[in-house]
Amino acid sequence: MLSRSVSLLQQLTTTNNSRRYLSLKQLSPIINRNLAWFAGQSTKKTFGGRLKRRLKNFLIITVVGFGTYYGVSSYRRYRWFNEISDSDKTMGTKPRVVVLGTGWGAVPLLKHIDTEKYEVVCVSPRNYFLMTPLLPSVSVGTVETRTVIESIRSLIGPRIKYVEAHCVSVDPKAKVISCNTDGEQPISRGDDVKTILIPSRRAGGSSSRIIKDSTRVRPSFDMKYDILVVSVGSENNTFNTPGVEEHAHFLKEILDARRIRSAISDAFESAMTPTQTPAERKRLLHFVIVGGGPTGVEFAAELADLVREDLQIYFPRLVANDVKITLIEALDHILSMMDKQISDYTERHFHRENIDVLMNTFVKEVKQREVVVQLKGSDELKSIPCSVVVWATGIKPRALTNKLREIIGLDIQSNRMGLLTDQYLRVKGVADGSIFAIGDCATIQIPKLVDRFQLLFEEADTERRGTLDLQQFRALVERKIAEFPQLEIISKSIEKAFEEADKDKSATLTLAELHSALEKADTKNRVLPATAQVASQEGSFVADLLNQLNDIQSNNYEQQNLKPFRYKHMGSLAYVGGDEAVVDFTGSKPILDMFNLKPISGRSAAYLWKSFYLTEMFTGRTKILLAFDWVRTQFFGRDISRY
Amino acid sequence: MLSRSVSLLQQLTTTNNSRRYLSLKQLSPIINRNLAWFAGQSTKKTFGGRLKRRLKNFLIITVVGFGTYYGVSSYRRYRWFNEISDSDKTMGTKPRVVVLGTGWGAVPLLKHIDTEKYEVVCVSPRNYFLMTPLLPSVSVGTVETRTVIESIRSLIGPRIKYVEAHCVSVDPKAKVISCNTDGEQPISRGDDVKTILIPSRRAGGSSSRIIKDSTRVRPSFDMKYDILVVSVGSENNTFNTPGVEEHAHFLKEILDARRIRSAISDAFESAMTPTQTPAERKRLLHFVIVGGGPTGVEFAAELADLVREDLQIYFPRLVANDVKITLIEALDHILSMMDKQISDYTERHFHRENIDVLMNTFVKEVKQREVVVQLKGSDELKSIPCSVVVWATGIKPRALTNKLREIIGLDIQSNRMGLLTDQYLRVKGVADGSIFAIGDCATIQIPKLVDRFQLLFEEADTERRGTLDLQQFRALVERKIAEFPQLEIISKSIEKAFEEADKDKSATLTLAELHSALEKADTKNRVLPATAQVASQEGSFVADLLNQLNDIQSNNYEQQNLKPFRYKHMGSLAYVGGDEAVVDFTGSKPILDMFNLKPISGRSAAYLWKSFYLTEMFTGRTKILLAFDWVRTQFFGRDISRY
Ligand SMILES: Cc1cc2nc3c(=O)[nH]c(=O)nc-3n(C[C@H](O)[C@H](O)[C@H](O)COP(=O)(O)OP(=O)(O)OC[C@H]3O[C@@H](n4cnc5c(N)ncnc54)[C@H](O)[C@@H]3O)c2cc1C
Ligand SMILES: Cc1cc2nc3c(=O)[nH]c(=O)nc-3n(C[C@H](O)[C@H](O)[C@H](O)COP(=O)(O)OP(=O)(O)OC[C@H]3O[C@@H](n4cnc5c(N)ncnc54)[C@H](O)[C@@H]3O)c2cc1C
Repeated sequence: MLSRSVSLLQQLTTTNNSRRYLSLKQLSPIINRNLAWFAGQSTKKTFGGRLKRRLKNFLIITVVGFGTYYGVSSYRRYRWFNEISDSDKTMGTKPRVVVLGTGWGAVPLLKHIDTEKYEVVCVSPRNYFLMTPLLPSVSVGTVETRTVIESIRSLIGPRIKYVEAHCVSVDPKAKVISCNTDGEQPISRGDDVKTILIPSRRAGGSSSRIIKDSTRVRPSFDMKYDILVVSVGSENNTFNTPGVEEHAHFLKEILDARRIRSAISDAFESAMTPTQTPAERKRLLHFVIVGGGPTGVEFAAELADLVREDLQIYFPRLVANDVKITLIEALDHILSMMDKQISDYTERHFHRENIDVLMNTFVKEVKQREVVVQLKGSDELKSIPCSVVVWATGIKPRALTNKLREIIGLDIQSNRMGLLTDQYLRVKGVADGSIFAIGDCATIQIPKLVDRFQLLFEEADTERRGTLDLQQFRALVERKIAEFPQLEIISKSIEKAFEEADKDKSATLTLAELHSALEKADTKNRVLPATAQVASQEGSFVADLLNQLNDIQSNNYEQQNLKPFRYKHMGSLAYVGGDEAVVDFTGSKPILDMFNLKPISGRSAAYLWKSFYLTEMFTGRTKILLAFDWVRTQFFGRDISRY
Repeated sequence: MLSRSVSLLQQLTTTNNSRRYLSLKQLSPIINRNLAWFAGQSTKKTFGGRLKRRLKNFLIITVVGFGTYYGVSSYRRYRWFNEISDSDKTMGTKPRVVVLGTGWGAVPLLKHIDTEKYEVVCVSPRNYFLMTPLLPSVSVGTVETRTVIESIRSLIGPRIKYVEAHCVSVDPKAKVISCNTDGEQPISRGDDVKTILIPSRRAGGSSSRIIKDSTRVRPSFDMKYDILVVSVGSENNTFNTPGVEEHAHFLKEILDARRIRSAISDAFESAMTPTQTPAERKRLLHFVIVGGGPTGVEFAAELADLVREDLQIYFPRLVANDVKITLIEALDHILSMMDKQISDYTERHFHRENIDVLMNTFVKEVKQREVVVQLKGSDELKSIPCSVVVWATGIKPRALTNKLREIIGLDIQSNRMGLLTDQYLRVKGVADGSIFAIGDCATIQIPKLVDRFQLLFEEADTERRGTLDLQQFRALVERKIAEFPQLEIISKSIEKAFEEADKDKSATLTLAELHSALEKADTKNRVLPATAQVASQEGSFVADLLNQLNDIQSNNYEQQNLKPFRYKHMGSLAYVGGDEAVVDFTGSKPILDMFNLKPISGRSAAYLWKSFYLTEMFTGRTKILLAFDWVRTQFFGRDISRY
């Protein structure tokens, strides 16, 4: 690597004498003059001018060279597999772990799992990892597409086999997955054309890709597994709103971002067409975002940046008179999962940024040139003319997730939002515990304490007195906390919880008093959010768990003293535009919680946001590219070319 | 610009105290530890580790910052229009020049034309300039897409109006163009879907784009012009070979490059599918390039680089056993327009690079999974199984070019390859000379000397002797060289030409002797090649011509002493892979020709090739990006993610 690039620099700076018919020194002045002429720079025919130009070019190469040089050290470890000859080794000697997906859940798992112990196969229709949090930046061109993706082969190396395929069914009895058998017809030679040709049916694998090229149809295949990890993520939820699939953009995959970027540029160019009417111009330049969660907010923020920083220059009159950005939210404030302070801050900030926020508003339908909305508590429907609509309201399970739920039985898999798992992330209803589910497609089912409080009480009441003292209460909490993570709230300050529960101040708890204490703990037991943070912690957890197992057959993990999954919330970040961001530490554990940090917002939060992504980006390559992209955007603005 | 980026660096390095609820200093150690934890870098919890990481991030930003800093100076002039308030001013006071196209011909014209003198409007369906010579690099990922394009609005500034539209007809009498009226239906919300939905009919404007979005249909409009410059380029020529449109890739627009890149990655991923048969695997990894001109050769070279430098790492076994690249050429050598030495060198080089070259071979049909070929002089058809086929054989006129030829009259516009122009690049058959044509869509018609040799002779024979002496011959050549540029060959060494023609050594030329001399000169009068070099010289020429005109009505340019167009060939460059290139100076004028330079090839040519593009790239932005891309490819290889 290094030597190759050094040799490049050499080539570019010195003359290399092999295989030439003529000395370069003789040539170069002549050539340079003529190249300069051709380049239309004939004015600078002086020696100084030529030298300056050459020095300039050399400078570019050298300086940028040094910039990337840094990356080599951190990158090298991702290229270690360079030395290993082949990734396609015979299977069969070690237990086989099949991982479905190449997203936030799967990748940390693949990176941490012990390949000495397991034969690991990754199956996913998307041959790269996608840094989803940067998608809003990509959709306006602040960051380029290749910056936020990293080839899965380069991430996992040759010791893990990767197969680009679409898993369509799982047989938990036979322990076999089936891939590529969904009967879709081979259709075209293009790349991203499927959604258009099958418009009503987005490809399950990833919203807008999967090639079924006429010349490159994928054969179907079955694959046996010993352990299966389902990490297939989620789909966009339209809540059956008519017209969304046809007329709105999602923001979930890289091609969505590309399409949005292209559509924005298109809207402006169309508005510049001579015969466009003023009303139509206003419609064309009205951008609507549905959903006030982090994705919707960040996209609105990036769009406002694009308009203010770049489109303003190219379309000053349009920006001054016609451009409008509207964010529609069904609840009464945006970023509702974050601290109220942050919601308020963001709303004020958006007001300054000229982003209209419509609260308490439901979108009933998306049409070709308008969205139809209804205000909360009103029957009236209102039509809002607009062009680009970005739909960012929420997620629903993929077809595969639902299919697996059905195969296992909907009585056990009763949660419509995804696969129910136990606290070790094993899918409920799979007898041998051979299927794990992580990330957006999974929900951890935690038993309610109150459902078993009678038993718990009896167990704790070692002396059969009918009451529990503090000692016994503490023992109960400590013994059961692994099974019932909601006890953590109590365990943090057992004395206080005991006192609160002990309403008659008897220094003992009756059955009824214990019930109310446990009931309270149960309410704290919220479903984990569908975020990258959760998915990646779950992925690492499963890898660690599998690495610790002595025998994959014996699946009583409690007995083996294996710890169940615990989510550690690190806070939430969102970019809100104008170089400002918001950070919320509510619920963060373990350290941050003790400091009782307040949410922060503004420019320092944006600094955090930027350094967070620089630290977080998976490889040296993407780090360099991201830093370069940001600086490039600062200097040169965003490109508005449309292709 | 500068101050903004300085402030970014400040934000990233110092703490800014406005709008925060909490001191960042207090926070940062805590946050950093936790971010690191989340990032899975928990091993480095020491202070040194943290510091190192922060320093690293800072380093990236700073170093890349310096790299881009250089660009600002050269970029600033492209942002001057920042200060001007609006680009959409009222028309009508100055003569209006309408330019069709945003390619190699149009952009130099737009950059040089005097906007004080003319109201200039550019109409093109493609809102960016495309650096076509780098397309082969883009198609394998050596260079990224945004590096080779530059937004037309950013290039031309606000003093020229740009309208993104597709010109479909011209009325030379009324001096009006009609745009967007081709009756194509609005079709979808995607960006690059048109070719799929109208598969048999590539969009005339640019082979694979033009959005007709359901929400953003372009209204049609007519536009008056005083002067029209047609610079619409060309289309790919399939020579009516069946199956090319459906199954082969072209390499002409940016989306073609994207599709090819995606198809290559797809072929490899498909070959890795478990149930793939060996024969099918070989087919999938057989890449065929049709056409041994510079585009075909450069693409084959870049593909070989990709395979050797990157795919080798990810798919070592496939590369060792199955990958095959075949270049098919109908003539008996490749790069036939360049020096024979260069063809030979390239063929030997390709042999070393494992690129098969099939010479004297015609492609009769392209099917889904094969190409059918025929050897010269044989009747037998042979089928070659393959996957990705890249078609790079030649060009043909666009629909608009042919329509305009018909409107003017095919008797005058008798050249099937494009619009015939006079030597001032005015389209023949347009009485008032108000239409110019440049670039790929135009051919300069130069009158044959022999057609008028009788007249010429009489004119030259001032003393009515029936013979010409050297003096008279010289006078003839000098007087007529403006009208008959083919006389240049003679004018270079008049004595020699005279001697050669004077077969009877009489020191005078007879009518017959003059005829043979002129006939010889006529044969040297070749049609200019369809290259960027020609197009951009023509573009600059028309701009200069228009800038010089005092009155656009009086169109007898000879009388006004305006010089006709002369092409100055600067040599040809082609990248042939493995960091080598070839450069041919044959026919270069004026300086290079005197030195009688030999062609050069190898690494020094590659150096030339690289510095040429760094000099040639239009803006600071693209220069920086190109240098960065090259260095990035050296360090990190090419990304094989497919989307
Ligand atoms: C625009 C946007 C911004 C976001 N920002 C943040 C943020 O700032 N912070 C945060 O914490 N979270 C964020 N999220 C949420 C985060 O991206 C998801 O929670 C996370 O990606 C979930 O990880 P996952 O592994 O479950 O699914 P994904 O990352 O979606 O990965 C699913 C994988 O499964 C593959 N797959 C799909 N179907 C199949 C199949 N049938 N067979 C095999 N493989 C299949 C897919 O190709 C994909 O590789 C954001 C999401 C979006 C869309
Ligand atoms: C892969 C590749 C590599 C090449 N390498 C080289 C090289 O190394 N050196 C070299 O000298 N040449 C090279 N060429 C050739 C060179 O690109 C062309 O000769 C050159 O682009 C011609 O310039 P042009 O302005 O005539 O057409 P183009 O550059 O093709 O521009 C045509 C413009 O007209 C627009 N247009 C099309 N239809 C309409 C319409 N109906 N109304 C209005 N506008 C319209 C298009 O959108 C486009 O903007 C290469 C070409 C290719 C494809």
